[in-house]
Amino acid sequence: MKSLVNTPFLILFFLLVVSQSAFASRKTINPQNPCKRMVLYYHDLLLNANGTDVDNSTSAAITNPAKLGNNYVFGKLIVFDDPVTKDQNLHSPPVAKAQGLYFYDMRTDFTAWFAFSLIFNSTEHKGILNIMGADLMMEKTRDFTVVGGTGDFFMARGIATVTTEAAEGIKYFRLKMDIKLYECY
Amino acid sequence: MKSLVNTPFLILFFLLVVSQSAFASRKTINPQNPCKRMVLYYHDLLLNANGTDVDNSTSAAITNPAKLGNNYVFGKLIVFDDPVTKDQNLHSPPVAKAQGLYFYDMRTDFTAWFAFSLIFNSTEHKGILNIMGADLMMEKTRDFTVVGGTGDFFMARGIATVTTEAAEGIKYFRLKMDIKLYECY
Amino acid sequence: MKSLVNTPFLILFFLLVVSQSAFASRKTINPQNPCKRMVLYYHDLLLNANGTDVDNSTSAAITNPAKLGNNYVFGKLIVFDDPVTKDQNLHSPPVAKAQGLYFYDMRTDFTAWFAFSLIFNSTEHKGILNIMGADLMMEKTRDFTVVGGTGDFFMARGIATVTTEAAEGIKYFRLKMDIKLYECY
Repeated sequence: MKSLVNTPFLILFFLLVVSQSAFASRKTINPQNPCKRMVLYYHDLLLNANGTDVDNSTSAAITNPAKLGNNYVFGKLIVFDDPVTKDQNLHSPPVAKAQGLYFYDMRTDFTAWFAFSLIFNSTEHKGILNIMGADLMMEKTRDFTVVGGTGDFFMARGIATVTTEAAEGIKYFRLKMDIKLYECY
Repeated sequence: MKSLVNTPFLILFFLLVVSQSAFASRKTINPQNPCKRMVLYYHDLLLNANGTDVDNSTSAAITNPAKLGNNYVFGKLIVFDDPVTKDQNLHSPPVAKAQGLYFYDMRTDFTAWFAFSLIFNSTEHKGILNIMGADLMMEKTRDFTVVGGTGDFFMARGIATVTTEAAEGIKYFRLKMDIKLYECY
Repeated sequence: MKSLVNTPFLILFFLLVVSQSAFASRKTINPQNPCKRMVLYYHDLLLNANGTDVDNSTSAAITNPAKLGNNYVFGKLIVFDDPVTKDQNLHSPPVAKAQGLYFYDMRTDFTAWFAFSLIFNSTEHKGILNIMGADLMMEKTRDFTVVGGTGDFFMARGIATVTTEAAEGIKYFRLKMDIKLYECY
């Protein structure tokens, strides 16, 4: 009688088990092929030192710079509640909010470190992306990492590529955020 | 002679390869079916401005609020070393500690942003969960993201759903944390 | 006529679907078998309170300790721009920079909480690892979590095991970082 589980089956099953094991530590994700992509614009309007432009501000420093690398405001920490829009216009209706912090952290040039939540509450998206990373401003584009998500973005991970598009003194800057998720559930 | 690898095999193998590729970017995780779940209670006892209740405090502000949205203490940053219990009673033996920070970050209402480690060192669990997220207090429940883990929680990811259960002025609040891990190793 | 898709096939296919579903929440990662490993040394040189040793400093406190657990500088927050080397020598050419923050967060002993980017820009590696975790200094080794990566470390996750190797008062400390990535793409 012929065996129910014949040789080709065994070979196939073996290949399968091997491929699954490899999968565990070296999955294939193609950087060019995110499962979700959004381009958004983040606007930061910093309160001035005297606090006289409250109505026109969405962020504020909560520490003074340290005495280290003073010209690059090393150690200045800013908390923000910033609007995020679908186009470059600050006055467009926000599609999300960005709430979190950044602080300047380089002695010899301007760089900052960001950690924040991108909070969506629109008909299009409800949910949050948590993002962190180094803003190396001397480079044209920088990559932050999307480390978690909730709601529509349940368990998401990915990359947010940021570009400074405008900077008006210390009052205003705009970041283009090209958000690419590679884990979608 | 019949080919060893016949047509049905090839079809199956093809389906398999396709399904594995899809797997890479769109794995299936069911929000209703975490691989690990724990309900814990986080207790925060904030030191008062004069520092006179040290014995009864587990957290302290390290910055003053900014002059932006003053009524909602925008920019006030708190560092905590808070007990975590299995039931709602602050005086129950802690099963974990929560060490990290939160800061208030909304101009027009109370919201905060948390980043912390949940440190377990008991017979039941040894290890750490690292958690971050937006605490949108105007909503009944909010989701933080578990972005990494160590020890018993090696490489974990998931969601921590928090609910404010008690709030006594600015001195005390208790968060119920319903922690659901979806990646367990 | 014999069915093209016979019984053994159906059994195998069923097993396959089941195993893939299980895979989603319980992948196999062996802690002993990272897909990438690097041992690096992090050097922190803290600016003194008077700011007189600027040339010899790579980090600075931006808040004062709170009045809680004063002896362990609870609430002192430090921003750093620290060199990272391949050997223990502070003066070796850096292979990466560590930019981020740590703050002390325990009332009854020294512990700190870290969040930072490890920024590689050498012929060997270009890219960033984002790291966070609790530095429980009373333990010989502590595990931070690598929560995201960019460039050569695209979408990485893993563990960074740290050991304090040297501590010269409050001016200098060195951490050995044994970085093990378990998700490589």
